[in-house]
Amino acid sequence: MAQAEVKVGVVGGSGYTGIELLRLLLRHPMVSLHAVTSRQEAGQAVSAQYGNLLGQVDLTFVEPDLATLSACDLVFFATPNGVAMRLVPDLLAAGVRVIDLAADFRLRDPAVWEQWYGMSHACPELLAEAVYGLPELYRSAIQQARLVANPGCYPTAVSLALLPLVTQGTVDLQRVIADCKSGVSGAGRSANVNLLMGEVGESFKAYGVSGHRHLPEISQTLGAVSGAEVQLTFIPHLVPMVRGIHATVYAPLSAAIEDLQAVFTEYYAAEPFVQVLPPGGHPETRCVRGANQCHIAVQQPHPAGPVVILSVIDNLVKGAAGQAVQNMNLMLGLPEETGLQQVALLP
Amino acid sequence: MAQAEVKVGVVGGSGYTGIELLRLLLRHPMVSLHAVTSRQEAGQAVSAQYGNLLGQVDLTFVEPDLATLSACDLVFFATPNGVAMRLVPDLLAAGVRVIDLAADFRLRDPAVWEQWYGMSHACPELLAEAVYGLPELYRSAIQQARLVANPGCYPTAVSLALLPLVTQGTVDLQRVIADCKSGVSGAGRSANVNLLMGEVGESFKAYGVSGHRHLPEISQTLGAVSGAEVQLTFIPHLVPMVRGIHATVYAPLSAAIEDLQAVFTEYYAAEPFVQVLPPGGHPETRCVRGANQCHIAVQQPHPAGPVVILSVIDNLVKGAAGQAVQNMNLMLGLPEETGLQQVALLP
Amino acid sequence: MAQAEVKVGVVGGSGYTGIELLRLLLRHPMVSLHAVTSRQEAGQAVSAQYGNLLGQVDLTFVEPDLATLSACDLVFFATPNGVAMRLVPDLLAAGVRVIDLAADFRLRDPAVWEQWYGMSHACPELLAEAVYGLPELYRSAIQQARLVANPGCYPTAVSLALLPLVTQGTVDLQRVIADCKSGVSGAGRSANVNLLMGEVGESFKAYGVSGHRHLPEISQTLGAVSGAEVQLTFIPHLVPMVRGIHATVYAPLSAAIEDLQAVFTEYYAAEPFVQVLPPGGHPETRCVRGANQCHIAVQQPHPAGPVVILSVIDNLVKGAAGQAVQNMNLMLGLPEETGLQQVALLP
Amino acid sequence: MAQAEVKVGVVGGSGYTGIELLRLLLRHPMVSLHAVTSRQEAGQAVSAQYGNLLGQVDLTFVEPDLATLSACDLVFFATPNGVAMRLVPDLLAAGVRVIDLAADFRLRDPAVWEQWYGMSHACPELLAEAVYGLPELYRSAIQQARLVANPGCYPTAVSLALLPLVTQGTVDLQRVIADCKSGVSGAGRSANVNLLMGEVGESFKAYGVSGHRHLPEISQTLGAVSGAEVQLTFIPHLVPMVRGIHATVYAPLSAAIEDLQAVFTEYYAAEPFVQVLPPGGHPETRCVRGANQCHIAVQQPHPAGPVVILSVIDNLVKGAAGQAVQNMNLMLGLPEETGLQQVALLP
Repeated sequence: MAQAEVKVGVVGGSGYTGIELLRLLLRHPMVSLHAVTSRQEAGQAVSAQYGNLLGQVDLTFVEPDLATLSACDLVFFATPNGVAMRLVPDLLAAGVRVIDLAADFRLRDPAVWEQWYGMSHACPELLAEAVYGLPELYRSAIQQARLVANPGCYPTAVSLALLPLVTQGTVDLQRVIADCKSGVSGAGRSANVNLLMGEVGESFKAYGVSGHRHLPEISQTLGAVSGAEVQLTFIPHLVPMVRGIHATVYAPLSAAIEDLQAVFTEYYAAEPFVQVLPPGGHPETRCVRGANQCHIAVQQPHPAGPVVILSVIDNLVKGAAGQAVQNMNLMLGLPEETGLQQVALLP
Repeated sequence: MAQAEVKVGVVGGSGYTGIELLRLLLRHPMVSLHAVTSRQEAGQAVSAQYGNLLGQVDLTFVEPDLATLSACDLVFFATPNGVAMRLVPDLLAAGVRVIDLAADFRLRDPAVWEQWYGMSHACPELLAEAVYGLPELYRSAIQQARLVANPGCYPTAVSLALLPLVTQGTVDLQRVIADCKSGVSGAGRSANVNLLMGEVGESFKAYGVSGHRHLPEISQTLGAVSGAEVQLTFIPHLVPMVRGIHATVYAPLSAAIEDLQAVFTEYYAAEPFVQVLPPGGHPETRCVRGANQCHIAVQQPHPAGPVVILSVIDNLVKGAAGQAVQNMNLMLGLPEETGLQQVALLP
Repeated sequence: MAQAEVKVGVVGGSGYTGIELLRLLLRHPMVSLHAVTSRQEAGQAVSAQYGNLLGQVDLTFVEPDLATLSACDLVFFATPNGVAMRLVPDLLAAGVRVIDLAADFRLRDPAVWEQWYGMSHACPELLAEAVYGLPELYRSAIQQARLVANPGCYPTAVSLALLPLVTQGTVDLQRVIADCKSGVSGAGRSANVNLLMGEVGESFKAYGVSGHRHLPEISQTLGAVSGAEVQLTFIPHLVPMVRGIHATVYAPLSAAIEDLQAVFTEYYAAEPFVQVLPPGGHPETRCVRGANQCHIAVQQPHPAGPVVILSVIDNLVKGAAGQAVQNMNLMLGLPEETGLQQVALLP
Repeated sequence: MAQAEVKVGVVGGSGYTGIELLRLLLRHPMVSLHAVTSRQEAGQAVSAQYGNLLGQVDLTFVEPDLATLSACDLVFFATPNGVAMRLVPDLLAAGVRVIDLAADFRLRDPAVWEQWYGMSHACPELLAEAVYGLPELYRSAIQQARLVANPGCYPTAVSLALLPLVTQGTVDLQRVIADCKSGVSGAGRSANVNLLMGEVGESFKAYGVSGHRHLPEISQTLGAVSGAEVQLTFIPHLVPMVRGIHATVYAPLSAAIEDLQAVFTEYYAAEPFVQVLPPGGHPETRCVRGANQCHIAVQQPHPAGPVVILSVIDNLVKGAAGQAVQNMNLMLGLPEETGLQQVALLP
């Protein structure tokens, strides 16, 4: 391994997002893990909690105190919503850069945030400064940011599906439908009967039909790009598998497009982490399992009907920890692909 | 067991639809299995092919010859597309009633059929006579029918989701989207690398985006009910589970509806095999596993957006063999629920 | 449905064993469900908890009070260990017969019970009276019993695998190994991080290697049959599927056997719920899914090595609720197969 | 990426073992992929076959001709059994080193090989030269080898489980039992009805009880280490998951062992790819998914019973492609861990 140059901390290392961050950071050639915190597991070996790290790391979980974290150059929050916002102001003040993988800084409007997350925001003044960490859209702002709000998993898949068309203004944003499907790891790692394998194995269902927190996040992104008001229908579903998100996006056009495939291949030509499939392709979640990649295919099955965009990511990688490392690379001036060149695990 | 009264035959008993028919017919109190045919397995014990029948039945697969089948009162075809149409005219002539679980008689227009199925139809003159076997829509015609075309699995789930609204004329049928998800048993039981568990396990994908044979079937049903032209977008997906279909149907309204929930509960109030969930519910495929049931929920998440209808069936039961037995009961004048009262297997 | 003749109660109807009992009892032609209790869900519709019962039943969970239960002819306990023993003495005194699906009455020796279950037994005097509900072994005693201890899932699969050889005294009971594999529903339905699909999906592991409560239960049965002391090695494993147990039993012989296959087919010739596969067969858990069946195969791969017996059951049916109904039929003098003729759901 | 220094070829790149080799070799810092052959896919882009490589590689499958392969420094065979033996003599003669991931060179006795593989061996004279590629046992011989026979997946898991005890001579090798469980990718990627997800999903079964080709391979290894005759019982099972092997090995002791745990931790103290769990641990296949690791735990549940050793690997990594790369590193004089430091993908 190369010499460690940057000291990073991970707050909340005992959830699925945290463990995935550790997997990536442990093999990142330019960073050293200074602290991994977990209030519940403090004092325990990290590898006792996560068998995949057995023999790979000597770390012990520590308490998330400010002194420890302030000694880091950059801190990731892989915590439940509402935790990061209590610590971030002090860390920024101490000159530490922050990437929050939870939702505390994703919405710019504090009122909208408080409505969807059901609590008061502890530092609403930072919402305007926080940069939404979708590199394919906000790369240069991320490079300058002190505080990055890592996007949600569904918003990443849906936004990347729509950006090529929304940017050129050819979509009727009043009628877009995003039918999304996620593996169970997206629901996190807490003791919840509804997530037992006995409950969700060998079954398929929708959830959150009446409203899901990722809806305002997607609308904010599409609205920012288009300048238009967005009326999106977003329905998430639970797939009996562990990892992966598949977004099926139905986009009625507001103007004809000559070469749909070219719009997508050209838009993403220079992006290392978005691949456009050849015409007629169907992306599969397994093709991005464990990789910081988004695979996209586009078709218009009937000239009178909507464009159909299929977009897959690994919810824990491009939908969470991988994208966070990508953002870290940008913030630190490292090559964007550093530590993110894993090939997806297929089969 | 009750005395057998009706002699039935099953042609093509070695696929998933065939085995499911056997499971139901073996415990049906009013029928006796006269013949189960399979060209490939002729001479073998049925239970050697299907371990679930070990000790339950003494049947041996026989060749599908006309003499054997003509001795039946009713014959089911659980064969690949294109097989039934070669035998059905002779069977009808012999006074045998027929239910085809394949697609040979589902479309009324021979030209449309030949376009989607890629072969000439062997008896196009029967297409007009064949009754589409969706009892919730065509019950009385089925009761009189000699020949019933058992609906496809996706069309059953989607049609039942839309009937209450289409019947009252409140849907904009130019813009309906049916995003459907199926377990792998829907793809049948043939040696196909693409259906290996190593290929489809722990992964999710769409397929047939450019066009799927169930699209004209759904359009035909909705068109017949509405009298209008239908422009439907239908995208099927493959779920890493064995049984179950979940249809998520997006229906933009053409007229406001006062009490959406009541439209559905009233429409299906008398139906034994369709259950409408309480408001806010999310149907799960496991809740209908092994049962001849369709569970439906309906919501309109945003007043400016489409109505969202969630509909689940077991693709092999209400989507195939169970619905076929329901049709048989109607054709034979038996109580419609006879032999179909299994409770779904949960978990 | 036939007329209800026997009033039964189910205590603890909200776990997997309880819901499976309801599935079977609702379609049993000779019983009526008088009460289904659940402290936590009292007042709620049973179908609100279990979507598979939607439209199938009007029952509401009630509190488990003695008056309600005393009005039953027979009461099933589908409760955690340690609950039944507090209510059973009063119920027996009231003339109610009892089947406990938990472990309270499975071990005859109170000291052994208290060692493995970590609590004092509330009515040790009943342990001698309770009949171990394995009908293939104790049929006539069950027919006379007031109190039946329904066997554990692993003990059912392992005992049925070994009975033919142990009965004839040809096994070296000091060296038997039972390597067992269970689907996750065997672990019950409680909020436990270790049973999340994110934890157990797509993975396989052993558990309880140092000791599992089903070990003394199996040893007790084999010891009772053989009259010998038993030294068994029993290792359970968790399979990433919902239902099913597969026991692979390694039995070194103490005497040569001429026709191994015949020993098994003859021993189980008259049993409706045990099927012996043809020579060379490999039982599959899916072949008994949802059915009250045990499938067994036997081979001796090498003359100098142990006999290998493969035994599969559905842990919730022949391993719990189905066997309980079988015991009820025996206790009530009904034909043993009543209400238990479901064909397994394959695929 | 570092400069490529070694030219390698992969023959038979379109199976699961081949794709896994490509995943590892593409990110190996010291090799360049000179040729990937597939008779069936020749001319096609490798990424058209394997979506996980989309955008990651420009390779095209080529025909497996001698000229192309002779230009390589080292060639991997990821072909069906019986293919490598026809090409290997010419490649060795051309000075190319070879690693065969199939079984052609695993058994030293041609007669035993021909009995188990049902064909004549094309170059039996090479069997004595071929080195069995289990680095933990034959490291120094591998470093000198021209031809390495990469071990089977089951033999790797079972041999690593037993080596510490067999080396010290404390096991009764007449009575060892290896009860093994594998995910479906171990069965390969060919059109086989028995491997459809509809057949093996949500089910568990044993197979090959009467005899499996990995039995003589394991016996040969244990016999070579112990110098004794081995009478092993080996029963493989199929788990409804994609990757992973779990071996549960029952080893009756021939001599008492004071500190069982220490025997294992000391034996593997210096091994980078074998981890011994703390006492009481239960290894999980997910903890090695995608990683070239073997996790082992050991217990003796009862002093009178056998030692129980639990051993897990990813069948495609430490059980195939990863071990092959480990062998390549040894043969080429590279650090053994080069290109093999992936952390397992959990969850």
